[in-house]
Amino acid sequence: VIDFTLGEPHLSHETYSVIKESLEKRMLSQHIGYSNFYGVMELRENVANFCSQQYQQNYDPENEMIITTGCSESLSAVLMSLINPFDEVIILEPAFSLYQSIVTLCGGTVVTYNLHQTNMRLHASKLNELISPKTKGIIINSPNNPSGHVLSEEDLSVIYECVKDKSIFVISDEVYRDLVFDNNKYVSISAFDSLRDQLFIINGFSKTFAMTGWRVGYVLGPKQYMKKIGIVHQNLVACTSTISQYACIEALKNTQLTTIMVQYYKRNRDYVYEQLKPYVEDIIYPQGAFYLYFKPLNNQQSSLEYCKKLLLDKKVALVPSLAFESEDSGYVRLSYCCDFETLKEGIIRIQKFQKII
Amino acid sequence: VIDFTLGEPHLSHETYSVIKESLEKRMLSQHIGYSNFYGVMELRENVANFCSQQYQQNYDPENEMIITTGCSESLSAVLMSLINPFDEVIILEPAFSLYQSIVTLCGGTVVTYNLHQTNMRLHASKLNELISPKTKGIIINSPNNPSGHVLSEEDLSVIYECVKDKSIFVISDEVYRDLVFDNNKYVSISAFDSLRDQLFIINGFSKTFAMTGWRVGYVLGPKQYMKKIGIVHQNLVACTSTISQYACIEALKNTQLTTIMVQYYKRNRDYVYEQLKPYVEDIIYPQGAFYLYFKPLNNQQSSLEYCKKLLLDKKVALVPSLAFESEDSGYVRLSYCCDFETLKEGIIRIQKFQKII
Repeated sequence: VIDFTLGEPHLSHETYSVIKESLEKRMLSQHIGYSNFYGVMELRENVANFCSQQYQQNYDPENEMIITTGCSESLSAVLMSLINPFDEVIILEPAFSLYQSIVTLCGGTVVTYNLHQTNMRLHASKLNELISPKTKGIIINSPNNPSGHVLSEEDLSVIYECVKDKSIFVISDEVYRDLVFDNNKYVSISAFDSLRDQLFIINGFSKTFAMTGWRVGYVLGPKQYMKKIGIVHQNLVACTSTISQYACIEALKNTQLTTIMVQYYKRNRDYVYEQLKPYVEDIIYPQGAFYLYFKPLNNQQSSLEYCKKLLLDKKVALVPSLAFESEDSGYVRLSYCCDFETLKEGIIRIQKFQKII
Repeated sequence: VIDFTLGEPHLSHETYSVIKESLEKRMLSQHIGYSNFYGVMELRENVANFCSQQYQQNYDPENEMIITTGCSESLSAVLMSLINPFDEVIILEPAFSLYQSIVTLCGGTVVTYNLHQTNMRLHASKLNELISPKTKGIIINSPNNPSGHVLSEEDLSVIYECVKDKSIFVISDEVYRDLVFDNNKYVSISAFDSLRDQLFIINGFSKTFAMTGWRVGYVLGPKQYMKKIGIVHQNLVACTSTISQYACIEALKNTQLTTIMVQYYKRNRDYVYEQLKPYVEDIIYPQGAFYLYFKPLNNQQSSLEYCKKLLLDKKVALVPSLAFESEDSGYVRLSYCCDFETLKEGIIRIQKFQKII
């Protein structure tokens, strides 16, 4: 089976081979105990410098940042701190399924804006309609999993205008922000300075440093909320794996790892988009991340059925839209963060399948 | 300052020096990606064998075990799966503060049985009084943090009799179970076979392998609940650090690490108990773990005040009972999992302080 289901960059050994020497020295000389529960200070300082220089996001490593067990735990800790039962949280679909699950776990209600209906653009009137006195937050994710779609400056303005001066939190999952192709400049919603007191930025090492297995993410946010988030974080996991945090200190010295990855996956992106376009009903053009979200057929067949048949007939695994949308849109997700030869073989199989189905 | 506040064995480099060679080989040859969200299968199988052989706890590594980010996350995942708002959970005080925080985070209510009031023994009548139709679970921890107290077979029988045939879960935190002194045999509540369908056992590598900074724990429980716990676990952290799991596979081949630790900390235990006994009002005799819980003074002075004064006057840090009990009992916790020389120096300072206070 060629497995295109995982959002896991295949270049993880590249990272390890680069960081291993320093990491080993560190493990031999430093105590491998609990870290400060907000995270190893050296890592927090380096992340703060990185975010400031690379992203113009200026956060105090002392009390505006928490190192978490991957971005999943960032999300959990933030949502568990902010969301009370019956609070509403707006999610832009298609979306990473975890947003829905964690909001539900917190007793909150998910309100969805399905971007398919407005051609992947945000309409202010439609977004405003979803806002109620119960709205506690909006979760955005750009570049998006599963579509690779990047929110434009206009889209971000729409969000900003809808939430500013309201007690609505914005949770911006920016874990794919360094994986943007074609030299496009990434714009974060953090560019709206006046949003700062209601904004939480989530990012991490899993995707851009191919370090999924190390489980390190971080959340940046206003000081007045970080203490509570820190307490939830401490309840959930005590602290993040110290070894993993040491590894991330080393990785951060090697931003060329991300450059290599962007080059590699841009080639994959171009290939997969060009090769599949003539064979399928629709593809959302992926400006970033490493996913292709496409609609293989023009009829109403369920994406789940399509994935099952493809797996059975051609031994290729994709993820159906059910994992990302409340209703089956017919789309499927293909992760192309694999080596090029595997990708080619899988695409040929999908092309063959499209001809016979 | 001599810091006796952390429950963190000082022998962490012993572990790393023993596992490092195999761990490095593994990191070079194996993919460092997301693990199966239940945990790396090789680790689960080894943990299952270990529990079966060492503890006579027989659990299927496939679907009765989840590897978590430390025991904290075991507790969080189990409680978040089982506890609904307004459910009551019984906790035997003194207790690790996390039990109270997580139950509260779940919207549950903590009902406490304070063991001081019954001379550290469990009385069936008193325990039965605490059980109501809302009682959803009881959390036990033996050897106990902060007292080192081990629940006797009679005490375990009392619990068993009170909860059997009721829909009350037993969560048994056994993370210190290998740290029992004087060749006493440890008895787990899992010895009551008929409790199996309502019992969750929590254990991990932090304490007995001096691996706090690696963040690996595990939960064993009945299959019918583990799926939901697994989903919560996946929401919280996706999976546990793969590197850390690899390290635990290696550690588990070196159970002599625990033997060395028990020998080392028994000497500390004997020393600290004998040296402090003549100077303080009361000490709970620590049969296990690496904590001494003692009442320094016979008056009603708060333990917080005592700790503040001791820190100021003698630069020795202890944890006041407020961290472990709903009401200040006057007791303080001393962690003696440090090197012997540091312990000696700290104890001399406390002795001097006791003479002048």
